[in-house]
Amino acid sequence: SIRSERLLRRLRELGDIGREADGRLVRLAASDTEKLGRDRVASWIRDAGLEVAVDRIGNMFGIWRPVGYELVDDAPIMIGSHIDTVINAGIYDGCYGVLGGLEVIETLKEEGFMPARPIVVAAFTNEEGVRYAPDMMGSLVYAGGLDVDAALATVGNDGTVLGDELSRIGYAGPQEPGFLRPRAYVELHIEQGPVLEREGIPIGAVENLQGISWQRITIEGDANHAGTTPISMRRDAGLAAARVITFLRDQARNSNSPMVATVGCIAFEPNAINVIPSKATFTVDLRDPDENRLQTEEAALAAFLVEIASDEQVSVTTERLARFQPVTFDKGIVTLVEQAAAARDLRSRRITSGAGHDAQMIARIAPSAMIFVPSIAGISHNPREVTPDADLVSGANVLLDVVRKLASE
Amino acid sequence: SIRSERLLRRLRELGDIGREADGRLVRLAASDTEKLGRDRVASWIRDAGLEVAVDRIGNMFGIWRPVGYELVDDAPIMIGSHIDTVINAGIYDGCYGVLGGLEVIETLKEEGFMPARPIVVAAFTNEEGVRYAPDMMGSLVYAGGLDVDAALATVGNDGTVLGDELSRIGYAGPQEPGFLRPRAYVELHIEQGPVLEREGIPIGAVENLQGISWQRITIEGDANHAGTTPISMRRDAGLAAARVITFLRDQARNSNSPMVATVGCIAFEPNAINVIPSKATFTVDLRDPDENRLQTEEAALAAFLVEIASDEQVSVTTERLARFQPVTFDKGIVTLVEQAAAARDLRSRRITSGAGHDAQMIARIAPSAMIFVPSIAGISHNPREVTPDADLVSGANVLLDVVRKLASE
Ligand SMILES: NC(=O)NCCC(=O)O
Ligand SMILES: NC(=O)NCCC(=O)O
Repeated sequence: SIRSERLLRRLRELGDIGREADGRLVRLAASDTEKLGRDRVASWIRDAGLEVAVDRIGNMFGIWRPVGYELVDDAPIMIGSHIDTVINAGIYDGCYGVLGGLEVIETLKEEGFMPARPIVVAAFTNEEGVRYAPDMMGSLVYAGGLDVDAALATVGNDGTVLGDELSRIGYAGPQEPGFLRPRAYVELHIEQGPVLEREGIPIGAVENLQGISWQRITIEGDANHAGTTPISMRRDAGLAAARVITFLRDQARNSNSPMVATVGCIAFEPNAINVIPSKATFTVDLRDPDENRLQTEEAALAAFLVEIASDEQVSVTTERLARFQPVTFDKGIVTLVEQAAAARDLRSRRITSGAGHDAQMIARIAPSAMIFVPSIAGISHNPREVTPDADLVSGANVLLDVVRKLASE
Repeated sequence: SIRSERLLRRLRELGDIGREADGRLVRLAASDTEKLGRDRVASWIRDAGLEVAVDRIGNMFGIWRPVGYELVDDAPIMIGSHIDTVINAGIYDGCYGVLGGLEVIETLKEEGFMPARPIVVAAFTNEEGVRYAPDMMGSLVYAGGLDVDAALATVGNDGTVLGDELSRIGYAGPQEPGFLRPRAYVELHIEQGPVLEREGIPIGAVENLQGISWQRITIEGDANHAGTTPISMRRDAGLAAARVITFLRDQARNSNSPMVATVGCIAFEPNAINVIPSKATFTVDLRDPDENRLQTEEAALAAFLVEIASDEQVSVTTERLARFQPVTFDKGIVTLVEQAAAARDLRSRRITSGAGHDAQMIARIAPSAMIFVPSIAGISHNPREVTPDADLVSGANVLLDVVRKLASE
């Protein structure tokens, strides 16, 4: 079994890197604070006797390539996740998978395990997508789904260019993304939703992951005086945006599917109290586990935007920020997760991931699956994101057993 | 009659002060660019042979106190408006009243008119209320409706303190606000609404001004993951804000009154694409010419906020930013305006002001009224705010005749 106090200590230590004076944890992709987090993780990887490698998109790897005997082949078992965070984040999202992966490799080394192939822990760049869209960018590039130079040229919502930021913090590495082609990929993560906790089940064997559609919508109307402009003469971009937000909620509420829709970002221009907004910009995050339904939902939104444009006399433009189809994970690995849980007397259930994960991207190039542990009250992307220590340890032990199995052949 | 080319030239010259590289005119109250505007106006006042005075809240005055004969008394006829602007403003709002007032005094001096009392042109501080709330702050303080020290302590939406900013730009003057108690006050302004242009009438004799209610509403919910959090478990502050925005529009659309409601400013926290907003802050600008109706509308909003808090499981707090009752102007001066227009063969009509104006505040301490000229397509608080030159000249000539009359006795 893993050394639980080492894993928990590192989780808390990493969780303090990027903590602001007001207590908020903010460690955005390729920022100064994420550099500090990367440095810390790199030093732990080195302490464990692994080789550190960084690719051009900043993905970081800790490679255990055993010496002194012949490997079955060089294709590694890869374990990974990310260490970038959202704004005002919790400490588990992503970090648990990276530090859990490192913990598993250290434990296997310490117990004298002789893997049939290398084992690698990966920390992928910009999984959250909060600073640069799309999310899961590092793993997407790694899996060949996005050109590395195009990704490096991405302009963030703070006006920075990802490639410049990676160079600045010293994490624009020399390796070509995809340089290690995994034989299998496993990711350990907190559920970030309420299912496991509600059902009192410690282990989720993630069998699929819903589709994600991200758009930025810009509505342009006309600035005018808030006091003198009759309602009938207004071209109010802010009101039009509000109507889109309530439309999306009504759609989700009235739908029979598990569809979710969220407007997380918004800005008005000129943003003055007595001026009708001339412009409203906001993001839409739309998800559904079923690709056909997701397309129907996107089409319903598009139709509503046409209606709003004519109703409110505004113009509407949309920009795609991310679009990922639902993914079904490798049945073999999912079954391994269930078996490993059962062998440790841990209840498990198959589960769908509501969040996007790097596993979703790596699934394009290797059999992949994920292990979930419960999130108290389903809270995530929030400083109150908590998973009980016992569950964190259980999840890492299940990962240990799955990786030991995968790396044996 | 006034020297129209002088008035129009100054309007355009002042309209270029505060123009940004991207072409937007931004001359917010007590900013660096407003200082440049004030300096220019002060130099024109001095060129006209008037005395410049500044009070503690930064209101600027050009005083014509005739010498060499005995005045009936010292209470001046005051003409005024403001030179601060909104963000991305037009050039007429406020400036027309200040420069029109100066033009009238210069014309009267040049024609050898011997007034029975001083004539004063005023540029009041922070009329727009965009940087510091409430709007009409300088004239409100001048009329005794707000303590000067409290006003100076106002924190702007950029975190600055008004008193510090006035000192910094050199316009925290020595005079006590209210130091000149006007015998009458007249303000010349663009309508900023569509009525005069639609009816082809060049002069509006403003007989009243609607009530203004400004609030900042803060909604607090709970940040959570956009992908994993079921709709039923969300406490989405952004959705709640959107529902308030659409509620207000429905209220205004379905009301039989000329009520208007505007949400001009908004911000979400943490403002991240895949995080349910934990906090939404936005402003509400609610107006009605009838005080009882305005109170009913405020109460309807308050009741809806209670409903939203329970529906969406959020907490709602409101902060009053401004609250002004409707004002009825002085019938005598309104009639003078109509007579002056008729004497120049200009059609006029009585009109209600949709915008707030300094006249509304000065009406507390002196008989007051306003003269409106048409705004093309009713556009204001917008760079496309335009009044034809001929109308600008007509309005200033009507002001000239009204002031000549008022200052004769
Ligand atoms: N796991 C996680 O929070 N990923 C971020 C991408 C998303 O699902 O929005
Ligand atoms: N005239 C004018 O635009 N005043 C600003 C105050 C307001 O009415 O919002």
